[in-house]
Amino acid sequence: MDKRLYEVSGWLKEEKIDFAFLNSITNVFYMSGFSCRPYERLLGLLIFQDTDPILICPQMEVEQVKNSGWECNIISYTDNEDPWEMIHTSLVKRGVSQPKAFAIEKILLSHYRSEKLQSLFPSASVASIDDKMNSMRLIKNEKEIESMKEAVRLAEFGIEVGIKALKEGCTELEIIAYIEYEQKKKGIHEMSAPQFVLFGDNSGHPHGAPGLRKLSKGDLVMFDLGVKVDGYYSDITRTFAFNSITKQKQEMYDTVLAANLKAIESCKPGIRIAEIDEIARKVIVDAGYGEYYPHRVGHGLGLEGHEFPSMNQENKHLLAEGMTFTIEPGIYIPGIGGVRIEDDVLVTKDGPKLLTQYPKGLQILEDSRVES
Amino acid sequence: MDKRLYEVSGWLKEEKIDFAFLNSITNVFYMSGFSCRPYERLLGLLIFQDTDPILICPQMEVEQVKNSGWECNIISYTDNEDPWEMIHTSLVKRGVSQPKAFAIEKILLSHYRSEKLQSLFPSASVASIDDKMNSMRLIKNEKEIESMKEAVRLAEFGIEVGIKALKEGCTELEIIAYIEYEQKKKGIHEMSAPQFVLFGDNSGHPHGAPGLRKLSKGDLVMFDLGVKVDGYYSDITRTFAFNSITKQKQEMYDTVLAANLKAIESCKPGIRIAEIDEIARKVIVDAGYGEYYPHRVGHGLGLEGHEFPSMNQENKHLLAEGMTFTIEPGIYIPGIGGVRIEDDVLVTKDGPKLLTQYPKGLQILEDSRVES
Repeated sequence: MDKRLYEVSGWLKEEKIDFAFLNSITNVFYMSGFSCRPYERLLGLLIFQDTDPILICPQMEVEQVKNSGWECNIISYTDNEDPWEMIHTSLVKRGVSQPKAFAIEKILLSHYRSEKLQSLFPSASVASIDDKMNSMRLIKNEKEIESMKEAVRLAEFGIEVGIKALKEGCTELEIIAYIEYEQKKKGIHEMSAPQFVLFGDNSGHPHGAPGLRKLSKGDLVMFDLGVKVDGYYSDITRTFAFNSITKQKQEMYDTVLAANLKAIESCKPGIRIAEIDEIARKVIVDAGYGEYYPHRVGHGLGLEGHEFPSMNQENKHLLAEGMTFTIEPGIYIPGIGGVRIEDDVLVTKDGPKLLTQYPKGLQILEDSRVES
Repeated sequence: MDKRLYEVSGWLKEEKIDFAFLNSITNVFYMSGFSCRPYERLLGLLIFQDTDPILICPQMEVEQVKNSGWECNIISYTDNEDPWEMIHTSLVKRGVSQPKAFAIEKILLSHYRSEKLQSLFPSASVASIDDKMNSMRLIKNEKEIESMKEAVRLAEFGIEVGIKALKEGCTELEIIAYIEYEQKKKGIHEMSAPQFVLFGDNSGHPHGAPGLRKLSKGDLVMFDLGVKVDGYYSDITRTFAFNSITKQKQEMYDTVLAANLKAIESCKPGIRIAEIDEIARKVIVDAGYGEYYPHRVGHGLGLEGHEFPSMNQENKHLLAEGMTFTIEPGIYIPGIGGVRIEDDVLVTKDGPKLLTQYPKGLQILEDSRVES
């Protein structure tokens, strides 16, 4: 943590910004090691150029903050106290009564909270710390990668138990319930919200939701799973055929797989992100399915299930060692079904390294029911 | 929906505000009937004084928007398009090129998005629609209450299956996994995030998280469950003793139950919210446990698990018919355990009506293992 705090303090000095106020659960966790769900209550972290940071949290979280290893200052408040006043008093005590500038998470902080801070320090200009935080979080260290690998392993475990439970007539919700039951027994408390299993035509929408749709022979079956380990997410998708597959669906599968493989192959340090999207898109467009591929090739992955960078056609950023993201081309045909193959990729100096190990060749699954 | 849109249009006229921009998933759903998880993509609803509203969504959601019954205008965009430009163009076409004022959700909209809108319409003043939306959502209609009742029923079902699964040595995660498995088989896709089962000393923290703590004889067992039905949440807590209970824990239980009952009894139209908090607090303070009750008596409940109003000591608002909220006093003693009893309450003209039906008398649970 100290190294990260030190880096932000240095940035504040360079930018001549008096302090930074972090409010998002993920950035506060990234900088302090403490995480909770504050709901509508205020959770925050103040970082300064030269003095110790201050964590702001509801009083009932103080014990957990200390357990998390946080050794710096804490401002805690009850439901009847105004944390903003306490922040103001504390800053004035430190001599920060008329800051020239402060930095906030413009993309994440609400208009209301931003206005609150501005009303406390009306003469200060408001800078954005978003790019700084993104650039720090973008490059994962070994510990972060280990957490993500474990998260991937448990998502893959979900697919393994899920495909074994498929039976003609079972519902999507039954399968996802069973998968999460088995994942939780392994000690997982938080899944990406929510995990998906989709059957047949339900899979023909890129963001369908599981329901009481029953599995039929010939259905495509799409698993989109992800869990959180030590704060870090996995996000993987595999698509299967149940019992049999038509020529058209086989072609959809082959096309998506080719797009997935080709895009991943290109993930080397220095390539423009837009190019990766184009590589996957070209495979799908050339096969005649362009209109059925309505989304970008992937997204950053880490403390959030979707984070910076967006892996889209317009992104001119270059890949660098230590970046982690999804590659997930798909084809979705209304009334027919969808195929998506999503891997979690780490960029190394030698090129792409897959965090996902689950095989990608088409599997035609049998009914798990024991025939008697 | 039309009635709600009409009400906001009327409000815009009264307040002389040219248009409102809603961005939160819940308010967009409340006004349009459409819901999705846009992640970092923009979802929004523009409401005007006299002309039709416009829904803004990612292109891949358009089919679902139409399926949801939305018949007005849609602005849809791909990952490579800028929805803000499209909003601007569309408003200018409607003759809204230099609005005098627009309204946003100040508490929910990000600084970034608020700045974006302000940059499109730099001469407009920015009003808050938060109070208006809160006051509309505050009073539930019959349909909303039916959804909440069903959500409560399925949370109570969770407690029923959960207590039957308790065995000496089982873990918190095993039990919550089993509960969610059974709930999902009933067709529930979204739980309040996350549901909790806590054993023994783990329950001694108001926001503990379930883990691999094993159940021992003499433990308190706390279930905090809630699920979403048709967009509406339940949020209920029951605490049990496993196998036996000490005198101290029995006293904690009796105190919390008395506070819960007395607070609920007071929930009649016209009472100040602060008073309800005080009534519960007084019972706990008088019993000598004041320092172990670190939170407010409850919170509003509806489209969000925690929503307006906050049921705290400072809230001067009066209860009115149709309001729904939790009443959830608790006592948490580090190292010993916690007791919380949380009900979902509807205010009617005749006084409080409990959505929660699960009994509240202390139950000392037996081990579910069949002794052989």
